[in-house]
Amino acid sequence: MIEIIGPLTHGAPGLGGKPVSLQKQLIERLQQAILAGRLPAGAMLPSSRLLAAEFGVSRNTVVLAYDHLIAEGYVLADRRGTRVSPLSNAASHADTQQDPTASEVTFATRLKWFATTRTASDMTSVLTPGSPALDRFPLGAWRRSLERAMEQGLPQLLGYGEPAGEPALRDAIAAHLRMARGVRCDGSQVVITEGAQEALNLCVSLLTNPGDTAWVEDPGYRGAKAACNLGDLRTVPMRVDQEGMVVPPEAWRLSPPKLIYTSPAHQYPTGAVLSVARRLDLIAQARRTGAWLIEDDYDGEFRHTGEPIASMQGLVPDAPVLYVGSFSKTMFPALRIGFVVLPRSMLVQTRTALEEMLRGGHRLEQLALAHFIEAGEFGRHLGRMRRLYRERQQALREALAGRFEAAQILGGNCGMHLTLRLPPRISDRAVVSLAQQRRLNPRALSGFALQPGDEDNGLVIGYGNTPAEQITAAVNTLAECVREVAGAVRRGRLGAGVKV
Amino acid sequence: MIEIIGPLTHGAPGLGGKPVSLQKQLIERLQQAILAGRLPAGAMLPSSRLLAAEFGVSRNTVVLAYDHLIAEGYVLADRRGTRVSPLSNAASHADTQQDPTASEVTFATRLKWFATTRTASDMTSVLTPGSPALDRFPLGAWRRSLERAMEQGLPQLLGYGEPAGEPALRDAIAAHLRMARGVRCDGSQVVITEGAQEALNLCVSLLTNPGDTAWVEDPGYRGAKAACNLGDLRTVPMRVDQEGMVVPPEAWRLSPPKLIYTSPAHQYPTGAVLSVARRLDLIAQARRTGAWLIEDDYDGEFRHTGEPIASMQGLVPDAPVLYVGSFSKTMFPALRIGFVVLPRSMLVQTRTALEEMLRGGHRLEQLALAHFIEAGEFGRHLGRMRRLYRERQQALREALAGRFEAAQILGGNCGMHLTLRLPPRISDRAVVSLAQQRRLNPRALSGFALQPGDEDNGLVIGYGNTPAEQITAAVNTLAECVREVAGAVRRGRLGAGVKV
Repeated sequence: MIEIIGPLTHGAPGLGGKPVSLQKQLIERLQQAILAGRLPAGAMLPSSRLLAAEFGVSRNTVVLAYDHLIAEGYVLADRRGTRVSPLSNAASHADTQQDPTASEVTFATRLKWFATTRTASDMTSVLTPGSPALDRFPLGAWRRSLERAMEQGLPQLLGYGEPAGEPALRDAIAAHLRMARGVRCDGSQVVITEGAQEALNLCVSLLTNPGDTAWVEDPGYRGAKAACNLGDLRTVPMRVDQEGMVVPPEAWRLSPPKLIYTSPAHQYPTGAVLSVARRLDLIAQARRTGAWLIEDDYDGEFRHTGEPIASMQGLVPDAPVLYVGSFSKTMFPALRIGFVVLPRSMLVQTRTALEEMLRGGHRLEQLALAHFIEAGEFGRHLGRMRRLYRERQQALREALAGRFEAAQILGGNCGMHLTLRLPPRISDRAVVSLAQQRRLNPRALSGFALQPGDEDNGLVIGYGNTPAEQITAAVNTLAECVREVAGAVRRGRLGAGVKV
Repeated sequence: MIEIIGPLTHGAPGLGGKPVSLQKQLIERLQQAILAGRLPAGAMLPSSRLLAAEFGVSRNTVVLAYDHLIAEGYVLADRRGTRVSPLSNAASHADTQQDPTASEVTFATRLKWFATTRTASDMTSVLTPGSPALDRFPLGAWRRSLERAMEQGLPQLLGYGEPAGEPALRDAIAAHLRMARGVRCDGSQVVITEGAQEALNLCVSLLTNPGDTAWVEDPGYRGAKAACNLGDLRTVPMRVDQEGMVVPPEAWRLSPPKLIYTSPAHQYPTGAVLSVARRLDLIAQARRTGAWLIEDDYDGEFRHTGEPIASMQGLVPDAPVLYVGSFSKTMFPALRIGFVVLPRSMLVQTRTALEEMLRGGHRLEQLALAHFIEAGEFGRHLGRMRRLYRERQQALREALAGRFEAAQILGGNCGMHLTLRLPPRISDRAVVSLAQQRRLNPRALSGFALQPGDEDNGLVIGYGNTPAEQITAAVNTLAECVREVAGAVRRGRLGAGVKV
């Protein structure tokens, strides 16, 4: 046998540096010889006594190795002795890289949408939309909340929790939303998710079948389209004006939706507030047709002018609205805690599915967040961030006014970004591409549109992660990028409308 | 106006006890009056000067309140003054509970499967399958790893990380899997997920279209069927014998699969090891037909007899296998860290989609886990748990042998549970239902089957969360439950085969 499988070595080092036992060596050598066909199907193996003598190992080592090979099905044992199993023809292909007869492997059709629409981003550069001021996060208070949760709840909190999340956090979120956002809810309606994206995916999973129609804002949040794409929905873009999503009256008849995605408090990325007339109309028509509204209140907490605009969910009782939010921007992105507030009428029908689809978990973080909210730390942090972002927005407005006199600036009532419209001849993607080389990370407005028109050309400029004193210099650099693209267009290097 | 909206009150308390400003009171009262139709569309509002005088508030308060109502679209302002907007007819329904003409709301068809197959469980009782010994988790070492990650990485780690997870953790997992499980991989192939369930969902999203066929083990892991159900796949059950999943040769032609789910190291819940002949055949046929295999190595780490059985993924180079694992049982469930190892050939085509579908996050926990693995803490913990579970399994075997002499016991080479077959006339669900009343939480074997047959009647009994000294008493109680059900059957109260 030694000529087939080679000698064994006492203390031979394994991958981790630890010596590999003779038994393990014997198992692996025999497996390799069988897979490669050097020990063909039906071949008798020597008795354990003979093999032990040949390799100079204890008989027990060989017996245990044979037992292992029997358990895995490499060899068979009966009264006549130990034989190599009749393995499939596959054995002879085991060491070939690729089966030449292999058919073409395919992926899900839905991957195509991602591949053709993706635009890159770099979260560490300045002017990034959606990136909060992480250096201002109250780490000390957060660590105290974590410590407190550990002291109260270990080790029980290591186990599976409620699939919908820790009751204490669900209650704290419900209380906060009632007061701060006018949402009509209690903790039983709140489902904790992995950030807002899982909340959107969950809405799609609970409410739609493949091929159903979803309306999304255009331009709008890519994550909403990604969730619809994952659910194999037919996505119908709805244009956005200064009052938010525009629904042509015939759309209810021609493309009746199962799901309608909106960001009413601060449309992303145009900043429009959905007017109350449109809110009421959406609610009434959704009720009439059995559709569901998703209200993504992604930065309604950071209202900069006047009183906060209350949620659409709370506008009328029992609205067919699923209210989605996240702590990625109000706390920090890596926390990955979001939520959806389900209409009370959905609770019974969805409970079993939610229990099987969700696993709970991250219980320490959830309890720490509940404590952080209840102790008032969250409210104080929001207040500080509102002041900071207001100051940064003001600096950005002034810098933009100085360098882009004629350009239209959208948004700014809420949140952490402004949108600057560019003339159609200056490709926003070309500008963004230049800007990224200079460590600036605005996004191209056209990248948010499903059917980009002339007015969807511009820059979505974040100020959350950019200190006020850096903003003037950053905007100067951005203005240079725009000038360079405009110059290239004039010199004929980039045709009007050419996307880079 | 006071007779329409009522008087304002200085210092009126809000929901949180904090006083509500006069401006906010004015806004809310006007909104309510407009929504209820007491201020109809087109109605002129008094000038800010007049209204301020009527309510005894500053004119600025009224101006800001009007501005807010204009921003939300409740009122319009032009040269002629401030008027109530023409809201939709919905306004008159605003305070009604339910629109009587509302059409029937519907949910996703996939919810039906969950609703009709769910069986309840209680993770805090003893004998629970899949529940690890949380009181033996080395909390001190884990907290030190967390502290270390915080000191090294804050505040940068608060931000979005790589969508596929922290590179340090992906590398640590790859190194561990190469050594401990014979997986052929490096960190670039590892994608971190929210536990194994998200890994399964991800495989479905990446590889299948609605209506595609998936093969699953029967009886088998419910989570695999849940993932297929979420992806609207046609699920074909494959029976399991003592060598694992049995594939009738004609199935490749009659029901060609896009996805095949297996748990080869320790079939759940029967404990069978998938024989190497079947592994090779699955790999060869999957290659030939363009199918993908999912290898769920859910408790391959806890091998109790002989050498660990290596992964199917590593059996041959470039196998069309997605290897799925989780730290829910090896660390603790609430950690919610799982992973999938993608075949190298998939990396290019799936990269963009993964970047958009995943958000990274939980970076502190991920870095702490990387450190925990690299420092050897994870390996030491696994070793201690293997010894502990072996001891508990031994106690369970002895107790079962004492009380269920004739019964067949399945599994036990790996993991944290044994499966006890019951005669078909004793309904496993009836036994489980009785046992749960007595704080025991075994699962009914029939609950794991898509098409339950006579041999799918039994108890899946966990020993991970049950100390050895409690096992005899628990098994005695379980034996009483079985005797009571058998007695009820004899007395004719439960017919043979009746499921409770």
